Amino acid sequence: MRVHVETLEIRTNGKGTYEITDQVDAVVVKSGVKTGTTTVFIQHTSASLVIFENADHSARVDLEKYFERLVPENNDHFTHTSEGPDDSTSHIRTVLTRSSEVIPIADGRLELGTWQGIFLFEHRRSPHLRRVIVNVLGK
Amino acid sequence: MRVHVETLEIRTNGKGTYEITDQVDAVVVKSGVKTGTTTVFIQHTSASLVIFENADHSARVDLEKYFERLVPENNDHFTHTSEGPDDSTSHIRTVLTRSSEVIPIADGRLELGTWQGIFLFEHRRSPHLRRVIVNVLGK
Amino acid sequence: MRVHVETLEIRTNGKGTYEITDQVDAVVVKSGVKTGTTTVFIQHTSASLVIFENADHSARVDLEKYFERLVPENNDHFTHTSEGPDDSTSHIRTVLTRSSEVIPIADGRLELGTWQGIFLFEHRRSPHLRRVIVNVLGK
Repeated sequence: MRVHVETLEIRTNGKGTYEITDQVDAVVVKSGVKTGTTTVFIQHTSASLVIFENADHSARVDLEKYFERLVPENNDHFTHTSEGPDDSTSHIRTVLTRSSEVIPIADGRLELGTWQGIFLFEHRRSPHLRRVIVNVLGK
Repeated sequence: MRVHVETLEIRTNGKGTYEITDQVDAVVVKSGVKTGTTTVFIQHTSASLVIFENADHSARVDLEKYFERLVPENNDHFTHTSEGPDDSTSHIRTVLTRSSEVIPIADGRLELGTWQGIFLFEHRRSPHLRRVIVNVLGK
Repeated sequence: MRVHVETLEIRTNGKGTYEITDQVDAVVVKSGVKTGTTTVFIQHTSASLVIFENADHSARVDLEKYFERLVPENNDHFTHTSEGPDDSTSHIRTVLTRSSEVIPIADGRLELGTWQGIFLFEHRRSPHLRRVIVNVLGK
């Protein structure tokens, strides 16, 4: 069995989705693992991961705007706002999406469907450097 | 270590939840893995996976109706509607649930709780053939 | 390859988040696995798991109150209420969060970010004893 681990550093420039499929796939190829699983894990509580359609950009716009309505910043209910109006909203949006995604590997590549991409979902307004661990396990 | 992989093809007939627990468990049994993990992964962005109570059907009805209200089709905000009013809604409902579920294996079987079942959650109105990868890893 | 499995029993005392990071990390240390993945799996459909910020308690209060508004109990739409007004809500809140979390292991410890903790999210009003499986896989 092999375990191959790399940490990606992803620069974000405000709220939105950032595709990282190619970076994750490159780690899988480098690992030499032919069959197994890849765990992608984000080490933050104000940015998250989603697997989402990567063909038509309008789908991503709808997703991002939907989350602005689902967990709105202008919300009298929140008390955890010491870092700004995007403080509690970013934690809650993380909970409603994912901290990790697990993707099978076949023939040494990510076994994604035709329209699936892996995205980092940034919930903070200001630029950040995000750490994403790619853990490849298999043989 | 063993890695055993099979792809299930699940026919759906419109929006709703479809239980696939037995098919997933059958793959685990066939794999011969006694202890490890099973990754269930759906290769689509308009259908997803959930682990949900499988005893009382009324719980599933409430879940399905809740998602119609949470991400409603009659929504002027969406622009990604080239494939119909269930286009963006199906992607967003997928993001709010799961693309993968990881379940431990003990004594060669899925270690689910008494009331837990694995369901494919179809978000499209029209019939689809869905591909679900079952990846069993362990010894 | 090693697979090490333990079941945690977590006592809950009504709705809310209960941190279990230390218990999960203790299982990882005990397993002797240095690099690999930990799958944390909850065997219930009315309590779930989240990875959430564990520094400032006000963030957890905001999260818990947000879920009361997102999936409210006083809701004429629900029919699955045989076990009380927290019946369907608890299943739906579970679907909107996670049944499992997968966390990489490095140097024999959970590779969590600085502010990340693992929490059991109890959605039932009455006290429960919850079973959480910790499955450590690696070498």
